[in-house]
Amino acid sequence: MANAPSSSASGIAATIDGRAVSARVIERIAFETRRLTDETGVVPGLAVVLVGDDPASQVYVGAKGRKADELGFVSVQHTLPADTSEEAMLRLVGELNDDPAIHGILVQLPLPAQIDKNRVIEAIRPEKDVDGFHPINVGRLASGAGEAMVPCTPAGCMILLRDTLGDDLGGLEAVVVGRSNLVGKPVAQLLLNENCTVTIAHSRTRDLPAVVRRADIVVAAVGRQEMVRGDWIKPGATVIDVGVNRIPAPEKGEGKTRLVGDVAFAEAAAVASAITPVPGGVGPMTIALLMANTLKAACLSLGRPSPKLG
Amino acid sequence: MANAPSSSASGIAATIDGRAVSARVIERIAFETRRLTDETGVVPGLAVVLVGDDPASQVYVGAKGRKADELGFVSVQHTLPADTSEEAMLRLVGELNDDPAIHGILVQLPLPAQIDKNRVIEAIRPEKDVDGFHPINVGRLASGAGEAMVPCTPAGCMILLRDTLGDDLGGLEAVVVGRSNLVGKPVAQLLLNENCTVTIAHSRTRDLPAVVRRADIVVAAVGRQEMVRGDWIKPGATVIDVGVNRIPAPEKGEGKTRLVGDVAFAEAAAVASAITPVPGGVGPMTIALLMANTLKAACLSLGRPSPKLG
Repeated sequence: MANAPSSSASGIAATIDGRAVSARVIERIAFETRRLTDETGVVPGLAVVLVGDDPASQVYVGAKGRKADELGFVSVQHTLPADTSEEAMLRLVGELNDDPAIHGILVQLPLPAQIDKNRVIEAIRPEKDVDGFHPINVGRLASGAGEAMVPCTPAGCMILLRDTLGDDLGGLEAVVVGRSNLVGKPVAQLLLNENCTVTIAHSRTRDLPAVVRRADIVVAAVGRQEMVRGDWIKPGATVIDVGVNRIPAPEKGEGKTRLVGDVAFAEAAAVASAITPVPGGVGPMTIALLMANTLKAACLSLGRPSPKLG
Repeated sequence: MANAPSSSASGIAATIDGRAVSARVIERIAFETRRLTDETGVVPGLAVVLVGDDPASQVYVGAKGRKADELGFVSVQHTLPADTSEEAMLRLVGELNDDPAIHGILVQLPLPAQIDKNRVIEAIRPEKDVDGFHPINVGRLASGAGEAMVPCTPAGCMILLRDTLGDDLGGLEAVVVGRSNLVGKPVAQLLLNENCTVTIAHSRTRDLPAVVRRADIVVAAVGRQEMVRGDWIKPGATVIDVGVNRIPAPEKGEGKTRLVGDVAFAEAAAVASAITPVPGGVGPMTIALLMANTLKAACLSLGRPSPKLG
């Protein structure tokens, strides 16, 4: 913890400990997994597909596989060469769709240019789409009809919010900064489902500081380092920082870098009542929720209810 | 026009004439339909399915069929008894899915209790789902991936807005009051796609008047008569009233009724710069957009681009 932001000490905000919350969620998943296996003999199975040799993707895929192993899941990784054809990719997805030992399929993005990402996502059976990117799952999340697979990072944000603010977020003003399909839009849906008054702000928003200043809950997911400043935050607000930006850190030595979020942490911590740090906030939640979705997919495949983890 | 709200004369708002805009859209559909038929021999086909004998549903279905006839579409209506089984309903949907002369399938809601609405909607082939209710279409609208069928009333609201404010709505503050799957949520998606800063407000919103007062664009879709008052409206705002509420009108004689929207028209017209009346605002757009979706479905089935109608 030597790298914890020292300035948080001078602020009033509680730091939301994503590592601790994520560890609790993982414990709960381990418990529910043992129960599932004891009662049915079924072990959740996750297949991760990686195309090419992008180093960042390899790190992510490795971490996902290790967490699945740790939980005793069936865990398989398919690594395909960078010049894999779309046809070969769709064939593999088809095999995984038909494999009863595999409950969750995750295709690591980005994909090389010759493969149409949307075609691959739509080829995954919606009930095995543990990333929650299939249009059927996006539609179910939006309409509330049927059991949706919810994207991992937004679902993780919601667990952190409930852990901080309690189960009833109804009537709170939430401002989501950023409208990506990965985070901004689904997190807005989830906040709306919790009865927040939800505003989605973005690059075309006219007076972004004023809009953010309305928020009891701020979710920042734009991918711009420390863009959200302290004086944008309403005193007492809860701030969830989804951004992960690597910046030079000459104070750590030549060529060294460090991670910062989309929120200027020290400034915001002096105003907010609670805030997630980067790293150690939202990040650790994402992998935990991927495991939760895989367990959920296994349960739903057996007609069992989705286990409560939040 | 004898029933036009007389108090609008004292206000400053322009009345947005949905009947006139809808007539222009219908003209454009007629033109594009002739072109499609001239070039390909294909005539757009719409099948409307009505279960039971609800009088309001019969009126809607009749109006849809007449408009389709007027445009020279292939138009078929299936009327099933109120005790139709879900199985029989799904069989009919399957037949219509496979019928190459039918490009659009509309199942009039509500359905009787023994039929699961969501199961029926999910059974319609997404490219024939001219209501835009299939989760795939909801998901495509939300994610922007693929060609979505957009629900008719929200799409109609957007045409009225562009007709009033011009093509660039970017940066405007839009507040949608109501979060139904039919109107509130999809219209919020469409406003976001037009780069508005979008807030969704609803029954749990804490200070609804203050939230609405922020809006350059107000879309009211709650189904509560004249709930949005004049002093909720920011001077100069554009107000789209989706509500249709029938109330007693003793001034027209005993037992008479009249239609009012979700907005107190006279009050709001004194503050807004433009406002839709009820009736004659959003209402006429819905049927026009249903025809537009049927034409679009016919074009897409041939691999032709979706015609521009807005």
